[in-house]
Amino acid sequence: MMPTPQWARAHTNIALIKYWGKKDPKLMLPANDSLSLTLADFYTDTLVRFRGDCPGDSLTIDGQPVSAGALTKAVRVLDEVRRRAGLTLPAQVISRNHVPTAAGLASSASGLAALAAAAAQAAGLHLTEQELSRIARHGSGSATRSVAGGFVRWYAGTDDASSYALPVAAAPALLQDIRVLAVIFSDQPKAIGSTAGMAQTVATSSYFPAWTERAERDLAALLPALAAGDFPRVGAIAEGNALAMHALTWAARPPFTYFLPATLALVQGIQAWRAAAPVPVYATIDAGPNVKLLTLADHVAAVQEWLADHFPTARVVVTHAGPGIQYYPERKEPR
Amino acid sequence: MMPTPQWARAHTNIALIKYWGKKDPKLMLPANDSLSLTLADFYTDTLVRFRGDCPGDSLTIDGQPVSAGALTKAVRVLDEVRRRAGLTLPAQVISRNHVPTAAGLASSASGLAALAAAAAQAAGLHLTEQELSRIARHGSGSATRSVAGGFVRWYAGTDDASSYALPVAAAPALLQDIRVLAVIFSDQPKAIGSTAGMAQTVATSSYFPAWTERAERDLAALLPALAAGDFPRVGAIAEGNALAMHALTWAARPPFTYFLPATLALVQGIQAWRAAAPVPVYATIDAGPNVKLLTLADHVAAVQEWLADHFPTARVVVTHAGPGIQYYPERKEPR
Repeated sequence: MMPTPQWARAHTNIALIKYWGKKDPKLMLPANDSLSLTLADFYTDTLVRFRGDCPGDSLTIDGQPVSAGALTKAVRVLDEVRRRAGLTLPAQVISRNHVPTAAGLASSASGLAALAAAAAQAAGLHLTEQELSRIARHGSGSATRSVAGGFVRWYAGTDDASSYALPVAAAPALLQDIRVLAVIFSDQPKAIGSTAGMAQTVATSSYFPAWTERAERDLAALLPALAAGDFPRVGAIAEGNALAMHALTWAARPPFTYFLPATLALVQGIQAWRAAAPVPVYATIDAGPNVKLLTLADHVAAVQEWLADHFPTARVVVTHAGPGIQYYPERKEPR
Repeated sequence: MMPTPQWARAHTNIALIKYWGKKDPKLMLPANDSLSLTLADFYTDTLVRFRGDCPGDSLTIDGQPVSAGALTKAVRVLDEVRRRAGLTLPAQVISRNHVPTAAGLASSASGLAALAAAAAQAAGLHLTEQELSRIARHGSGSATRSVAGGFVRWYAGTDDASSYALPVAAAPALLQDIRVLAVIFSDQPKAIGSTAGMAQTVATSSYFPAWTERAERDLAALLPALAAGDFPRVGAIAEGNALAMHALTWAARPPFTYFLPATLALVQGIQAWRAAAPVPVYATIDAGPNVKLLTLADHVAAVQEWLADHFPTARVVVTHAGPGIQYYPERKEPR
C-alpha cells in the first residue's frame, strides 16, 4: 500500500566551491566536487501523489503549471523514484516556492531536492540523505546539495552510485554564526542560462581543465578551515573560487560574463573595505549578476550599513545556515 | 670617433596578442609570443650623448629627472649598447614624450625603444630593427615591439639572441584602414603596476600555464587573418585574447582585476552593439581600466557617436598604424 503523502521541504544552497560544468551530462556527473551552505530562509515545499486516475505526470508551482523544461527535470526525478519503487503510476506534484525571485537565488536546487524527498516518501521508499541526493541530482546538479543541511559536499563520483552529497564537519560556532547577505541588483532572467553557459564554458574555455584542478585544491583547503572554524580563511577560499569560476567565461569562445558593472563594483568595494576596516566579509557569485556576501553574525549590521551607503538601490536579504529535508503531514500544509 | 647624435623617435604599440608574464625575468624573456600594432600618434623622441665629462648616466623626460626605477630600466638598455660598442662612457639622455597621460597608453614602450635606437646611433652601431628590438627588450618587454612599424610579432625565444621582434605580413588595406580608439576612463596610476601584477599572476594564477598555450593558439590564428585582411576575425581574436589575459588575474591569489565597472560596461556594451548593429568594433584592454577599440576607418564616426551617447564622460583619442624608428638631426628637434 502507498503511504499517506507528506510535504517535503528542502532549502536552497549557496556554493562556496562552485559546480560549473559536467563531465557526464547524461548521468549529471559534475566535473569537480563542490561544497555549499544550505540556507535557512529560502525553501520549497512539495507534495507528491502517485495516482492511477491521472493521464500523466503533472507539476504546479504556486498553483501554476510549469514549463516543459521544468517538467522534464521533474520527470527525471520521478522516474528515478518509480524505478527504485517498482512503480509505474503517474505523479501529481504540487509545489510551493518560498524562494522569492527578489532574493536572486535559484529555486531549482530546493525545488528538485524537495521533489526527490516528497516522491520517495510517497512511493514508500525509506532512503538516506545520500540516496536522496543521488535522485535529486537527476533533476538539477545543485539540488544534490540541498538534501542535507549546513555545509554539504557533493562528491563528483564516477558513476550514478558514487555521485552524491554528504554533510561536512564544521566548527559549531561557525555553523551558528555564519551569515549570508544576498545583494540583488537585478531580478531579470540572465542572458545565458546556467546550463547553456556551463556547456559553452566546458566546450570552449581555455581554462576549463585548470579550473577543475583549482576547484579540487580549493576544496581540500576549505575542509580544514571549516573544521577549525577559521572564517576569514573560509571566506577567502570561497571568494577566490567564485572569481576563478567567473574567469572561465572570459576565456570562452566567444567570451562572456555574468557580471554587471555593479557586480564588479561590489566585489572591488568589499575587497577594499575589508582590507581597510578590517571587516571579515567575502563575496561569492553564481551564474548571474547578484552577489552573496559571507560574514559573521557580529558584522551583519556593519555590512548592511556599508551596503546602504555604497549600493543604496540594491535589495539585501540576510539569512543563515539551514537544515536538510523536513517533512510535514499532508493535511497541514506548511507555512 | 663618435657620430653626431640624432634624435630617435619610437611609437607606442597596442598588443592584439598580449604579453603577460615572463619565463625569465633576468633576460626579459616573455612566457609567450605576442603581437601588436604600432600606433601613429603617440611617440617618444630621445637624444643620447655619450660624454666623458659626466659623472654617470642621466635621464630627463620633458626636462624633468626621472625616478630611480625609470633610470634603472634606461641603464639596462645603455649597458647593452655600451657592451656591443665597447664603450664605457656615461650617457646623457634627453627624452620628450608625446604620449599624453590622457591617452591612457604607457610611454615605456615608446620610451625604451627610442632610447635603444638613439643610444645605438650615438655609439656608432649600425643595427637592424631585429637587433635594436633585443636591446629595447632589456628596458621594457613591450618596448621590444615598438622598434618596428605596423603589425609586429615579438618572438619569445629561448635566450637573449632569440627573443626579438619583426614586422608581420598584413593585407595592405587592413594596415591602411585599421583604427584604434583609446577610450579613457581614468588617468590615475593603477593600484597594481604591470610588473607586480605580472609577477603575481605568474606565481599564483591557476590558469597561467593554460594562458600561454591559449596565447600561442590565438597568435597562430591571427597571422592568416592579418594576411587575408579579415578584420572581424582579427578583432574577435584580439578581444578574446585580451579578456582571457584579464581572466588570469581573477584566478590569482589573492584575486584582483585591472577593470573598473566602466571597463566592463564598455566591453559588454560593444559586444551587444556589435551583435545588433552590426558594426565591426572590438575591444582590447591592457593592464589598466582603459579600453582600446579596434575598428576600420569607415566606422570611426559611428563608434565615436556611440561612445558619446553611452560614455559621455570618457575621453576618446583616435589613431592608426604607425611606423618604426625614425631619426632626426640633433639641431632640429622634432615636433
